[in-house]
Amino acid sequence: MAKIQVFGHKNPDTDTVASAMGAADLLVQQGLETQAVAQGKPNAETQFALDYFGLTALPIIDKAQTAEVVLVDHNEAAQSVDNLADVQVYGIYDHHKFAFENATPLYITAKPWGSVSTILYYEYLQAGLTIPAKVAGMLASGLISDTLLLKSPTTTDVDRKALPELAKIAGIEDLDGYGLAMLKAGTDLSTRTDEE
Amino acid sequence: MAKIQVFGHKNPDTDTVASAMGAADLLVQQGLETQAVAQGKPNAETQFALDYFGLTALPIIDKAQTAEVVLVDHNEAAQSVDNLADVQVYGIYDHHKFAFENATPLYITAKPWGSVSTILYYEYLQAGLTIPAKVAGMLASGLISDTLLLKSPTTTDVDRKALPELAKIAGIEDLDGYGLAMLKAGTDLSTRTDEE
Ligand SMILES: [Mn+2]
Ligand SMILES: [Mn+2]
Ligand SMILES: [Mn+2]
Ligand SMILES: [Mn+2]
Repeated sequence: MAKIQVFGHKNPDTDTVASAMGAADLLVQQGLETQAVAQGKPNAETQFALDYFGLTALPIIDKAQTAEVVLVDHNEAAQSVDNLADVQVYGIYDHHKFAFENATPLYITAKPWGSVSTILYYEYLQAGLTIPAKVAGMLASGLISDTLLLKSPTTTDVDRKALPELAKIAGIEDLDGYGLAMLKAGTDLSTRTDEE
Repeated sequence: MAKIQVFGHKNPDTDTVASAMGAADLLVQQGLETQAVAQGKPNAETQFALDYFGLTALPIIDKAQTAEVVLVDHNEAAQSVDNLADVQVYGIYDHHKFAFENATPLYITAKPWGSVSTILYYEYLQAGLTIPAKVAGMLASGLISDTLLLKSPTTTDVDRKALPELAKIAGIEDLDGYGLAMLKAGTDLSTRTDEE
């Protein structure tokens, strides 16, 4: 069993799944034992991205199963696992407003950028590490999802710079085509269940 | 007037003063207008370091005077300026446990290392920026202060690596001699006022 589970918020979106995968891989490359997990099934948009890059969905948890955890794409307890208070937060990668309290010093990398996927792209870059193509594909997808293909008002210059570079690593040739198809998959009612 | 005041905690210690100076300079080099300030007079140890490097004490504030601020060496409101809730926190550099809440996404760089001075040394390094010699001297002093010259149990390998490199940039030839003299200045009762 990995020593550190890495997960995003409840009702996972594409940025949460992508950044859990990215952070887990980055930290493995930096010598930690991590496992990316999710607090729920992928939505239709995320499933489109997973299928495109030949990836399976992350294992689903409702409680953290490791003594240490890394939070991505959230920091507030209400959006996290039910037993957050019982585990130690090793680190956080996030781009939201903060409401976080804990008892021990920790790693936090927060930036007011369009996606956590963008933050992780620059973390790989700064660390001089290689982003696996499939991870780059998911990070591109998380960035596209949170910024609506760089159209949302939360989009920053940093996001605009990162997306084509991630797409190149991922081997996405028609970036707009991929992005629109992915966003469309998320809004396609035909893929929704009765519950939704 | 600078657009962003940068300050550490109440009852400033050497790491708080050094990291305010370091973060203010780093952010100026990255294109922001900043001013390092402090929530009180330097203690005897910090004054020793300021004198050694030919620096004057930081301007003293009790309320932030800019719409945006950067917090160093603290994140909890109780340790910050009285009007923290009325200003926007642009960023935080810290190495303490967290209890922080705000309304807008922001920059946070937190690491469980021996001093914020250490964190700032690596921020300069990652950004490929030059640390002015006097700033390096203060960062070395902040690191020495918080880690008791690398002897405290909070000392990490990262701190052990950073200190000699900062000392070299600062032109401190006898690092142990300087560190012991600075720590001694902080415990020298003869320099204390009646109040203390
Ligand atoms: Mn999200
Ligand atoms: Mn997000
Ligand atoms: Mn301090
Ligand atoms: Mn400190």
